[in-house]
Formats: sequence, structure tokens, C-alpha cells
Amino acid sequence: MTPFQLSDELLEQIKLDIDARHDKTLKKLLQEYHYADLAEIFDALPIDYGVYLFKLIDTEKTSDVLTEIDEDVREDILEALSVKEIAAELNEIDTDDAADIIAELPEERQKEVIEQISDTEFAQDIRELLTYDEGSAGGLMAKELVRVNQNWTVTRCVKEMRIQAQEVTRVHSIYVVDDENVLLGRLSLKDLLTANDRSKIKSVYIPKVDSVHVEENGEEVAKIMSKYDLEAIPVVDDDKKLLGRITIDDIVDLIKDEAERDYKLAAGISSDVQADDSILELTRARLPWLILGLIGGLGSVFILEGFEGVMSHPSYRTLFFFTPLIAAMAGNVGVQSSAIIVQGLANDIVKGSLWHRLLKEIGLSLINGGALAILVVLFGWIAQQPIEVSITIALSMLCVIVVAALVGTFVPIVLHRRGIDPAIATGPFITTSNDIFGIFLFFYIAKLMLGF
Amino acid sequence: MTPFQLSDELLEQIKLDIDARHDKTLKKLLQEYHYADLAEIFDALPIDYGVYLFKLIDTEKTSDVLTEIDEDVREDILEALSVKEIAAELNEIDTDDAADIIAELPEERQKEVIEQISDTEFAQDIRELLTYDEGSAGGLMAKELVRVNQNWTVTRCVKEMRIQAQEVTRVHSIYVVDDENVLLGRLSLKDLLTANDRSKIKSVYIPKVDSVHVEENGEEVAKIMSKYDLEAIPVVDDDKKLLGRITIDDIVDLIKDEAERDYKLAAGISSDVQADDSILELTRARLPWLILGLIGGLGSVFILEGFEGVMSHPSYRTLFFFTPLIAAMAGNVGVQSSAIIVQGLANDIVKGSLWHRLLKEIGLSLINGGALAILVVLFGWIAQQPIEVSITIALSMLCVIVVAALVGTFVPIVLHRRGIDPAIATGPFITTSNDIFGIFLFFYIAKLMLGF
Repeated sequence: MTPFQLSDELLEQIKLDIDARHDKTLKKLLQEYHYADLAEIFDALPIDYGVYLFKLIDTEKTSDVLTEIDEDVREDILEALSVKEIAAELNEIDTDDAADIIAELPEERQKEVIEQISDTEFAQDIRELLTYDEGSAGGLMAKELVRVNQNWTVTRCVKEMRIQAQEVTRVHSIYVVDDENVLLGRLSLKDLLTANDRSKIKSVYIPKVDSVHVEENGEEVAKIMSKYDLEAIPVVDDDKKLLGRITIDDIVDLIKDEAERDYKLAAGISSDVQADDSILELTRARLPWLILGLIGGLGSVFILEGFEGVMSHPSYRTLFFFTPLIAAMAGNVGVQSSAIIVQGLANDIVKGSLWHRLLKEIGLSLINGGALAILVVLFGWIAQQPIEVSITIALSMLCVIVVAALVGTFVPIVLHRRGIDPAIATGPFITTSNDIFGIFLFFYIAKLMLGF
Repeated sequence: MTPFQLSDELLEQIKLDIDARHDKTLKKLLQEYHYADLAEIFDALPIDYGVYLFKLIDTEKTSDVLTEIDEDVREDILEALSVKEIAAELNEIDTDDAADIIAELPEERQKEVIEQISDTEFAQDIRELLTYDEGSAGGLMAKELVRVNQNWTVTRCVKEMRIQAQEVTRVHSIYVVDDENVLLGRLSLKDLLTANDRSKIKSVYIPKVDSVHVEENGEEVAKIMSKYDLEAIPVVDDDKKLLGRITIDDIVDLIKDEAERDYKLAAGISSDVQADDSILELTRARLPWLILGLIGGLGSVFILEGFEGVMSHPSYRTLFFFTPLIAAMAGNVGVQSSAIIVQGLANDIVKGSLWHRLLKEIGLSLINGGALAILVVLFGWIAQQPIEVSITIALSMLCVIVVAALVGTFVPIVLHRRGIDPAIATGPFITTSNDIFGIFLFFYIAKLMLGF
């Protein structure tokens, strides 16, 4: 298969069909496409068209489409639906997705929608899920799971599972609990397929199961699941009582979102914007970082003004020509050092003390900086620069590189230790501060060496 | 659970136990820890210790540990094992992982190991898998899957599945084929649990199943699986014959690797290095990008030399103080524009023509640049700069920002269309070229406006 690509022609055709109220054609189209593809169509349609089309979807599919579409579009569609209509859609959906959708509604409406849900157990589950923090295991988990009692026989277990399985989209593991709902272990489907019908669950289940606490951080859960190759993990409370489960598909989205966020932060783009967002949203995500860069740049104007006198010197004025090079080196080295630390921190591979780390970075930047310094001297020789100027430039650049590497290593580690996301330190933040540091250091060292 | 953290104490204790040949203690430890945690221990142990410890692991667990450890360490361990020992380890492992491990051996040894594998069907599967390209669906898939014939009854199906399931680590879907092994559809475990024992598979299976061609690109497979929330996808050949299946856990690794690669490229770090790699490896990954930056910086030295005369002018010499600011703005804007395009391309949301995209970027950079230009004029007023100098700086900065944004948008799109990974354009590449462009443009426009 190749993933669906929304063409302008298809979009135009849909709009024409909506204008002409060709409900039959539209319904056929809605049946034909996968919900993830329909979500793309809804994201691209003007909102009145979207609302009209949305009401034509089969009830089974509506909820899936609703889960997949963009938050903004979903908000608009939900606004156009009555409380009753929303409640009806939610009935078909998994508790975790339902809770996520309800959480987006205004508080007053949340209550009204939950009251309209006919299945009281489902409504209760959603009320519970809404109490957990969005970024926690509780906020990620679904209440749907297959749970069996250790005292059942395999036959009873299969019978009960047939009932439970109808509510669960995908059966990953069967969780074994005692009479108090305390999680004891698991029963893989494979084990169940090969087990004797008369055995008691107690005698066939695996008394070992990984679980996460309901308040565990979502990123930590993602780390655990991907490290230990888990496709689902049960969620428990303080008393080890089984509350729900988190499945790998929710984690895939989390890992992707996380990676994209770090990448954007490193590029100086905050918040969740995409290439197809409006100019206003993109400006809001980009301008603050540019202003930060501007303030840094103005800072270096001040520093350079302090060395204005050097401009009168016939051979030392060359130093000014090298400022963009110094700034670029300081910025590049700082970004490299911070990016590798941020990624190491995310993957838990930054070991050893801060001092050890800094020492390694000094070694690394002396090697890199040394090689670059030689190139600079070589360039000076070709350009027939006075040798003392070339050596001064090369040596102060080397110092700048070492300092930039140290700053790039130090800042993210310290941020991380203080519980602040170190990814914010990889982008314009590190470039800007290293620009200022670098230029000051460059001229200051040059001043000491050349004695102007 | 909290993920395992390898402490220096534990590592020292293990080394001491190995020195003292405390095999019993070591075996207990090997049983206690998860294979992913053991892999961390092996990664940290000196190689002779690792080989000694490796031979003490239970056969069932060895293969999993082998799959998880670092490539370098694995290479060393495999070198220390005999062909027979390797073949014995592989017997316990899934075909996809076994093929990956064998692929790392020297060609001569590959043949010897495969000849030593006792299970001829398994050996045949591995031979087949080794023929596929590493980055393709064939290179990602495993041969293990549960396959049933459409003409079987549910009872026969369950019986056959019990046999097949013993070989499959995790049963995701049951694939339904005809007598020619052509993929017809699937049977979810849930359906099987709730189906009548006497029905024929033909009458209960879902005649729709997504599949990928064996030569499909791995990243494309990842996109499909994460978009459509698939936990496994069958792989077929030209005749739709069922060859294998790819599971979500392999895709999670791929998505993570891909995201980390793009992030590193954006930071100017090539190849697969980690914070805990050696200084030499880190230098090899970082120095080339720094040299690129250096060459760019030397280019701007030339450009600035061309404007040396301006230094004699009492108020225009200020322009030189602004070069780091201009370079920073050009770099930051270029990185922002390219990062958002690269991410949009990866997620297939960059729609419309190149012209449309460039026009949007012009609008965006005029707004951002305009705001920044006003700040620069304000700064000039506070710093009591001559007003014509301030306006010149502000306007030429605006031009630089617009051009930088266009370059940042244009380059990745063109690279992508030519089949080159656009991620290489987000890092030092765009910063460096925008630095040079920006500084030249800045002085050139200033020259036109101020007439020096």
C-alpha cells in the first residue's frame, strides 16, 4: 500500500458535492477511505463544509475520525455539535481517546456531555481519567483491558474474555488479578492458546509483570516501553491495584511528538506549529527566538564598539573581518555540544560526573579547535597576513571554541538537574550567548596578545 | 517500575566476581536482570570480561542480549565465539534479528554459521532475509507469523495456530491465505476468541488487509504503520504472496533513529555517535561540519575586506559592529525556515507548489523582519546613532532576513525533489551559506543607500 495523498482535485470535488448536497456520493466516499485519510480531508476543508460532511459519517467511524483530526478543526466541529450528538459519538470510542476529546471542551460542556453518556460505567471511567494529569501514565492509559481472576479455570477465563474482548480494540495481554483487583501477573494469548482447558489460571499465568504507577511521567513510560520492547503496560495505584493499560500506539505518537519538539526547539521554533499553519501562528512560534537573537546581536554591537580603536591600526583591523567567523564557530560548537548532551540525557547515556563530562569536552574541543586553528594560520599565510596576527586569531579562536563547548555542555546538564527541559538550550539560546561570549573573548585575548 | 540504572558499584562487583570466577553468583545475576539491562552491563564491561560473562548466560536469554548490545561490543563477542556457538545462539532468536546479526559477520563466516544451523527451515529463512536490502521492508520483516488457510475450520485453525504460535514471540494478527499462499485477509485474535468453532475461516475472516511490498522503503513502512496505527503489517511479493511481517517494535526503533539522525544533522553532527562514544569518533562526526563553517567564515573575511574603506568613515564604520548581528539573524531565520520545511516534508504536509511556499515564507519573513527592523531603529535612537545609519541597518537587515528565509525554504525542497535527504540542509550548511549571503547583502545594500 502507499499512504493516501490528498489531491486538490479530490478536495474540490468534495466541496462541489457538499454544495450540491450529493449525500449519497459523499457517504460512499466516507465509507471508502480510512479514518486517518478522512481526518486529512477534514483538516483541509473549510469548517462549514467539515461540519456538514461530519454528520454524514457512519457512527462507528466518526469517533476514529474525531480522534485523528487536528485539534483546531476538532474544536470547531465539536462546537457545531449538540451535547447529545457528542455523547453519542463518544460511546464508540476507547476511554483514553474519549477523555482526551472531552478534556478539550469548556468545563461546563464537559459535565453536560458526560451526563448524556448512556453507559454509566463508561461515564464513570471517563470521569476517573479526567482526574489524571495529561502528561502522566494516568493521562495516557485506557480503562479497556482484559482482566482475569487467578481462581478461574481456563474455560471460564476464555468465556469471560470473549465478553471483555468485545470492548477492547486490541488484546495485547491478559492481566491476572486477585479478588482485590491487585495485579499479580499476566497470561499471554499464546499461553492461553496452548494451555489445557481444565487448568486453573493460578497454575498457568506468569507471576511477573512490569507495571507503571498511575502518576509516572509519560516520557518515562515511553522510555520503559521502548527499552523493554513492551507492546502494552498495565497501570497501577499505590496498592498495586490494576487501573488501566497503556498501549504502544499511544507511545509511538509520544516519541514522535517529543522528537519533533526537540528538533523544533533546536531550530528556534517553539510550540506545536507545522509548515501548513497560518502565518500568524508561525510568527508567534518564531519571532520570540529571533528577538532573543537580536538582543544578543545588539549586545555584541556594544562589545565591538569597545574595541573601535583597533580600526585605526593598519594590520590589527583585520580582527573585525574575523568576527562573523568567530561567532559562527562559537555557535556551531555550542550547538554540537549541547545537542549531543541533550540527546544523551534523553537516552540516559550521560553517565559519570559533570567534571568528567566537561573534561572530555575540553579534550574534544582542543582537538577540533587545534585542527581549525592550523587551517586559520595556513589561510593567514596564503593571504599574506602578518604572522603575529594570524597566530593571535588562531589561538583566540581556539579559546573561544573550548569555552563554547564547555558552555554547550554545562548549560543543558545544569538545566536537566534543575528539572528544566534541556532541549531549550540547544537552539538560539546557546548560539546567542556563545556569539557574545565568543566575540568578547576573541577581542580580549587578541588585545592581551597584541597589546593594543 | 523504574528503568534499570547501571551503577559503578555494580559494574565493579561484576568485574571482581569474574576475576574470582564466582560463576554461581554471576549466573544468578544473569537470571535476575532483564536482557535489555544485561545488554547495558555488557556494553560497559571490558571485552574479555564480556566474553567470559556471555558464555554463562542461559541459552534462551543469550540471543535477546545479543540483539540488544552495541554493535561494536557484539562484534567483539561474536569474534570470540566459535561458528558452532553462534549458530546455537541464533536458533533461539527471531529470523529478523538473526539475519541482522549474521549480516554483521564477515562473508566467509556468514556461510559457515548458516551451515551450522540445525533447523533447515530456519536456515533457509535467514538465507532469504539476507538477500533483501537493509533499509527495505524485506530487511525489516521477520518470517515468523501465524498463517491459516481459508478452507480450514475454526477448530483446525486453533489447532494449527497452537503449533505455529510456539514459534512466534507475539501473535498480532492471523493472516489468511489461499492454497497458493496469496494473502487474502486477516483474522483478529479477538474474532477468533468470539467465533463459532465449526465455522470455516472463509466465512469469518476480514477480507481486507493492508500490506507492503517487500521492496518498499523502510521509512515509508514506518510512516504507514504509525499513520494507520498498525501493530503489524504483512509483507508480500509481486504476486501478493505472503513473505513475512513487520511488527511495531521494529518501527519504534526506526522512528527514534530517524528523529535522532535529523536532530543531529541539524546540529552539525553526522553519523551515528552518542555522548558516550570516544573522542575520536566524536571528532570524526563533528569536525567536518566545523571545517565547513570555517570555510564559510573565511569567505566572509574576504567579503568584509572588500568594504575595508568604510572603516575610515566616522559614522558608517558602525556597520562593522553589526556584522555578527546580521550573521546571527540570517543563520537563525534560515535554520527556522529549513527545519519547518524538513519536518513538513517528513510528515507529508508540505502541499501546494514551490512558489506558493516561497510566497508564504516572504510574507512571514516580512512580518518577522519588520518587527525586528523597528527594534533596530529604536535601538539606534537610544544609542544616538545617525538616523540614516539606523534606517540603513534596519532595511538591509530586513532584506537579509527575507533572503535567508527563501534560501532556507528553497534548498530543502529542491534537495527533497532530487531524492537527497533534506535534513542535511538544516544545520551548518544553511547557517554558513546564509552568513556569507547575509553579510554581503548587508554591506552591498548599505553601500547603495549610504553611497560610500
